[in-house]
Amino acid sequence: MADDQDIRINMLLFKGLTQLDLTGPFEVLVRMAGARVALVAENMAAVASDRGLSIVPTTTRDQAGRADLLVVPGGPGIDAAILDPDWVSFVRQQARSARWVFGICTGSLLLGAAGLLRGRRATGHWQARDLLSQFGAEVSDERMVVDGNLFTAGGVTAGIDMALRVVAELRGEEAAKRIQLQIEYDPQPPFRSGSPFVASAETIEAQRKAGAERRRIREAAVAKAAATLGFAALAAD
Amino acid sequence: MADDQDIRINMLLFKGLTQLDLTGPFEVLVRMAGARVALVAENMAAVASDRGLSIVPTTTRDQAGRADLLVVPGGPGIDAAILDPDWVSFVRQQARSARWVFGICTGSLLLGAAGLLRGRRATGHWQARDLLSQFGAEVSDERMVVDGNLFTAGGVTAGIDMALRVVAELRGEEAAKRIQLQIEYDPQPPFRSGSPFVASAETIEAQRKAGAERRRIREAAVAKAAATLGFAALAAD
Repeated sequence: MADDQDIRINMLLFKGLTQLDLTGPFEVLVRMAGARVALVAENMAAVASDRGLSIVPTTTRDQAGRADLLVVPGGPGIDAAILDPDWVSFVRQQARSARWVFGICTGSLLLGAAGLLRGRRATGHWQARDLLSQFGAEVSDERMVVDGNLFTAGGVTAGIDMALRVVAELRGEEAAKRIQLQIEYDPQPPFRSGSPFVASAETIEAQRKAGAERRRIREAAVAKAAATLGFAALAAD
Repeated sequence: MADDQDIRINMLLFKGLTQLDLTGPFEVLVRMAGARVALVAENMAAVASDRGLSIVPTTTRDQAGRADLLVVPGGPGIDAAILDPDWVSFVRQQARSARWVFGICTGSLLLGAAGLLRGRRATGHWQARDLLSQFGAEVSDERMVVDGNLFTAGGVTAGIDMALRVVAELRGEEAAKRIQLQIEYDPQPPFRSGSPFVASAETIEAQRKAGAERRRIREAAVAKAAATLGFAALAAD
């Protein structure tokens, strides 16, 4: 886009999101020249994330304008969002006019529930991305996937890496590099435990156990959302 | 600490903070067993960060209890905070009873203004950390510095790396590795531009230029805060 042109960014703010799914990409995207970021919620009340940090919306679904870039974070609250007709139809409508769509972590499940992943390559949090296939996605286990105008990132912090790629796509590599330097993003994780490909079997097993209940809830929600989407697709035929 | 013991964490929430300085470490620290995180502000109104994302406090300076771990983020608003007697004395008082202190980005300037860095090794955002010497710190240009119970991190995203080290210190390495896997922190930055040691000369120069006005304001604020601290130190003798 021309450097002097505004880029309208709508980021979804739903109850029970994982706040870093949103706040990481926010910090990168908002620094682009011309970025106009809206945090879109059901109403104007502060939205509680999954672990007690609450963020103030800047607009509501009803008031939100169309976006150039639509951003969907994830978190435990996504399991309710994919069954909420208001969120699902909002995403579907917004995506129609957006030039780019960006899903982070389990946010890609909502993209799926809105019918945006049929035949598209996509990724998501390692404990949930296999479920994207139920929405017709070609699932990748990469940290970042770009398929045309669709950007998807793995769990939580993958959104920061991908946001830099989005900036490079929209404003050029030098703009992304400037932002990377501003936020001093030269990561030095103290351990090698950030993906199921490098973590120990013990750590992975403990995490799977801790996530078993969430996984059960999510499987049921996805099955229901996928069935609804199937009917919607039939209805649209 | 014993695994069943609460860890009280007070994170400072002041106007004009850089939200990722707080939200990155928050996402890591809150996942520790027993973590009880408070977001401490001047009053209970939502606090606007430097680029329009507002966060809701959970308590006020007057109501905040003592912390085991005191966390100080940075951002443009730090230049007012280091000259605000209420913030400076809050940090000094809280640090007295805290077992650990953790400064992120330019947050270390406030630790300095509170007199906590005399003779201590510390780091901060690459565009500001040299100023820590005015508060008597031994300045490091590392991304993370641990000096006894004092943790300091470089700019913005360095807080995520350091938060994992803090968890390892407080709850053991396996706890930190579990959290790293939950947030899928296996970074793959698309460019090598995250520090002045790896960014191009062109990128660094552009960033220095863009930050010149902020630097001017900050130098004046730090000189004043350091003088105030000097008088305070004399008064305490």
